Amino acid sequence: MMKNIKELSIVFVGAGNLATNVAKALHLHGFHITQIYSRTIDSARVLADEVKAAYTNKLDEIQSNADLYIISLKDSAFVELIGEICKNKNEEALFVHTAGSIPMSIWEGYAKQYGVFYPLQTFSKQREIDFKEIPFFIEASTSQNAELLREIASNISDKVYEATSEQRKSLHLAAVFTCNFTNHLYALAAELLQKYNLPFEAMLPLIDETARKVHELTPKEAQTGPAIRYDEQVISKHLQMLADDERKQQVYELMSKSIHERAK
Amino acid sequence: MMKNIKELSIVFVGAGNLATNVAKALHLHGFHITQIYSRTIDSARVLADEVKAAYTNKLDEIQSNADLYIISLKDSAFVELIGEICKNKNEEALFVHTAGSIPMSIWEGYAKQYGVFYPLQTFSKQREIDFKEIPFFIEASTSQNAELLREIASNISDKVYEATSEQRKSLHLAAVFTCNFTNHLYALAAELLQKYNLPFEAMLPLIDETARKVHELTPKEAQTGPAIRYDEQVISKHLQMLADDERKQQVYELMSKSIHERAK
Repeated sequence: MMKNIKELSIVFVGAGNLATNVAKALHLHGFHITQIYSRTIDSARVLADEVKAAYTNKLDEIQSNADLYIISLKDSAFVELIGEICKNKNEEALFVHTAGSIPMSIWEGYAKQYGVFYPLQTFSKQREIDFKEIPFFIEASTSQNAELLREIASNISDKVYEATSEQRKSLHLAAVFTCNFTNHLYALAAELLQKYNLPFEAMLPLIDETARKVHELTPKEAQTGPAIRYDEQVISKHLQMLADDERKQQVYELMSKSIHERAK
Repeated sequence: MMKNIKELSIVFVGAGNLATNVAKALHLHGFHITQIYSRTIDSARVLADEVKAAYTNKLDEIQSNADLYIISLKDSAFVELIGEICKNKNEEALFVHTAGSIPMSIWEGYAKQYGVFYPLQTFSKQREIDFKEIPFFIEASTSQNAELLREIASNISDKVYEATSEQRKSLHLAAVFTCNFTNHLYALAAELLQKYNLPFEAMLPLIDETARKVHELTPKEAQTGPAIRYDEQVISKHLQMLADDERKQQVYELMSKSIHERAK
């Protein structure tokens, strides 16, 4: 591809949280997004309006002559639709997906030029995000394609790396622990506080400091709380307080055991 | 007590993470700390040096004529030593503890003036902290004592509240989820990344955004990841990757189930 990267026509397949945030960031930096596909026509339209693109909810209406296709679907949908997506497209087009746990090799037999464009972040449609700090992990079928993806990502982020499919899979798994599971702990705490008519906001300075701490200390050094020495007195009181919610009790017990084992 | 609060003589019983941080903050704001007790003489000396106080590791050498005793021991040690600590002390002295899950009533029969002085934060000795944003929860045997504790806390923090023992217990339990368990998830992720030779630093933007998000969205709204819709494809791959570590697998499965239940 010899065009200036800002002249490439880019099609997004998917209009979920990740696609929405990446498409908006690219649009904001002058990239040319020509079409949004989503199974849900409303999602396609909402995102298309924001990035001044066409939209469709029909796979066979996806433009055939784009330069870059960014696929951002749920893993199972992607695996199911990959053949359909690649069919009858510009032979020189570059196909990339944004999934942490799908290897690059999935493209083999479907596309000639391909790669992966993976931003390691948690995206919600309701929240705009500063992309500068988001690490992008790039992988591509040729060094030329890798260079192109690197150039695109560098326009929106200061942190662009190459990573193999194996490394990306591990990053994604670690991210599930640090982000998805962590947020769920916040959710469990919010339920507890609501039960006792206390505001969740009281937790925010603690949540912030817990995150800040591991910029300076290793998580192991930063660990505090009754589970380290398995303080029976505190732990049994807490388990009693959770007696009406077996799931929270299980989480409390398992996390406490796991902390204690590693502190010994 | 009619003295100016900066003239009160304050004794700390305990020199752990919390005592160290609170004592240093009070000292920095001109409060007069006269003595540090710790079972471990080295801990007592280190903190005493920082706040220009005397120190001891003998319970019967704790000053008898202080105005305020701040007890910050492990729950089990506190329960065991409370009688010893209160014995032969100034009758008008105010005794407070800093424990989330111990009710104020523990002082009954031991002290005449008493209360609780609970900062909701995670403290490590290696890390200095800005106290301004830390919520302090105060409880006291008389409104006069509550006023005194509020005045002291207000010197170091902008967020001072009164809370009953019941409320404080719930705050503490919620804090174990949002801080101790969250930090442990960071630790598990760090282990995973180390196994694959990837730097933990790659997680920091994600950790920060996960914390920032719940300033704007409820944790329920902020939830992302494969567990929401119980994406079998991703989840079973992840469980395979954890096959050599049963504890991590248990954490992964339990957290995923708990997320999925609440998303339905």
